[in-house]
Amino acid sequence: MTLTETCKWLMDRDRYLIITHIRPDGDTLCSAAALVRGLNGAGKTAYLLANPQATNRYTRFMGRYFAPEGYEYEHVISVDTAAEGLFPQGGESYTDKVELAIDHHASNTGYAEKSFVVSEKASCGEIIYDLLMDMNGGIDEETAALLYIAVSTDTGCFVYANTTAETLRTAAELVEAGAPNGELNKFLFRTKAKSRIALETSAMNGIRFYRDGKVAIIAVSRDMIAESGADEDALDDLASVPGQIEGVVVGITAREIGEGVTKMSVRTTPEVSANEICSKFGGGGHFMAAGCTMEKPLYEAVKLIAKAVDEVWK
Amino acid sequence: MTLTETCKWLMDRDRYLIITHIRPDGDTLCSAAALVRGLNGAGKTAYLLANPQATNRYTRFMGRYFAPEGYEYEHVISVDTAAEGLFPQGGESYTDKVELAIDHHASNTGYAEKSFVVSEKASCGEIIYDLLMDMNGGIDEETAALLYIAVSTDTGCFVYANTTAETLRTAAELVEAGAPNGELNKFLFRTKAKSRIALETSAMNGIRFYRDGKVAIIAVSRDMIAESGADEDALDDLASVPGQIEGVVVGITAREIGEGVTKMSVRTTPEVSANEICSKFGGGGHFMAAGCTMEKPLYEAVKLIAKAVDEVWK
Repeated sequence: MTLTETCKWLMDRDRYLIITHIRPDGDTLCSAAALVRGLNGAGKTAYLLANPQATNRYTRFMGRYFAPEGYEYEHVISVDTAAEGLFPQGGESYTDKVELAIDHHASNTGYAEKSFVVSEKASCGEIIYDLLMDMNGGIDEETAALLYIAVSTDTGCFVYANTTAETLRTAAELVEAGAPNGELNKFLFRTKAKSRIALETSAMNGIRFYRDGKVAIIAVSRDMIAESGADEDALDDLASVPGQIEGVVVGITAREIGEGVTKMSVRTTPEVSANEICSKFGGGGHFMAAGCTMEKPLYEAVKLIAKAVDEVWK
Repeated sequence: MTLTETCKWLMDRDRYLIITHIRPDGDTLCSAAALVRGLNGAGKTAYLLANPQATNRYTRFMGRYFAPEGYEYEHVISVDTAAEGLFPQGGESYTDKVELAIDHHASNTGYAEKSFVVSEKASCGEIIYDLLMDMNGGIDEETAALLYIAVSTDTGCFVYANTTAETLRTAAELVEAGAPNGELNKFLFRTKAKSRIALETSAMNGIRFYRDGKVAIIAVSRDMIAESGADEDALDDLASVPGQIEGVVVGITAREIGEGVTKMSVRTTPEVSANEICSKFGGGGHFMAAGCTMEKPLYEAVKLIAKAVDEVWK
């Protein structure tokens, strides 16, 4: 659907339930919350489906938009959720109930009845901003703050290569609309828990380099996380750490998420497709940022993904 | 002077020599280089005065705009240089020769014959952008890249509290004009030398907290720098490190720059004036980011500045 069709679709209905993705980030949670506020502003009722993995980093801003018990919805929308396999914990039964998917992933599988996918956008927040401007002609300060969180977290505060002129212009308009960017940035990007610093240090001590330092892999075990005292919030964006080292083309963070289960986050430069590497293990994502989960112990998984890098990047 | 007056002043003259500040950063060097390109585009001759402390981090982009030997200038301009004491090494004799100062520091002492100071701008790059748009009606890709470096480095890639809606809008226009933001960000903000990582780790090991963790000071000795192998580029923005720790209001980086000489970089939140703390030792800067140099050994200087914090922040 087009922007206008999507708006009309939303205006013609009511009582929405909004789905966010598994291991939710700032973009899915705060874009969805901003959509709730925008729909409320247009006289509609809307809430988010519970997402048990949402952490305090974001729920402090958007927690009150989760559906109260017994909420009776009529239409299901998903935001920033590219595939059925990415539905939130406890939300698996909604995969065939989604009437509208709003997404910025080119890889969106088209599982919803209707889709509004704008893959040139760096974040879903930018799409929701366009929608709400079309729907209500403006946004309030609170919505601006939510969308600022969505846009800024999906671009690493405008530092990732997905940041376009349009992203920066949307951010300018959100700041103008009242998003307290200085304060939000301080909290989101400029504050490191001591436990995070400890974890980063221990991860950097065990870093492995391959191919003359062009491939860097850090492995984070459950023991390392426990020792550092890092919680889920402190682990946020650990994926970007190895890719920050001078000369690294493929940076991988391997994290033990359970007994014999390893989650891989792959970050690349334009020379190599992260998506292609991860799709070898049933995962995916964007060209330069993708992920997959492997049913392998941590260090075995590291070896396998190093091999996959060699196969993809010859 | 106003923007229009400044433009006219520049158009009425020729053969400029441009001064950048001591310990030059991306804003002073790349704003000045962009001004050279803009003036060239308007048919004028302009070069930068040598700045021996300029490092490869920036000279790779702007080194070719330094004046060739024997360049005969007629008019001296300074860019981003707030006071006579901030003239570059070897440029001290120019302090009373500056006919035009272009600056964004509210603290500009007015040493120049004429001044164009816009203190609400986060960077000088934004002022030069406005000037060049007025002067030439547009900028080329190379100039856009230089101005993007200026604006992004002075705002920590749009993360510092000085970032305004106007800053983000200017950045959007620079990206549209061809600044390769993804590539530049990767180099400027997402690449850490291994030596930098080693230095940060050793600095964090010795961090001192005061006042229930609200004041954090790291001390970096010449020995620590030598052991890590960090060069001047790898030391860039070390000042922001202690302020990033959760709960810190005043973050200070003390760096031994010579025998018994310590340079302090102070970063604060809106509750405390960094400028006021540093002015106690003859330094200064912005409200939340300031610096001073003390003729004291490293750890003695740390004690003195901790005391100054208590005096300023009661």
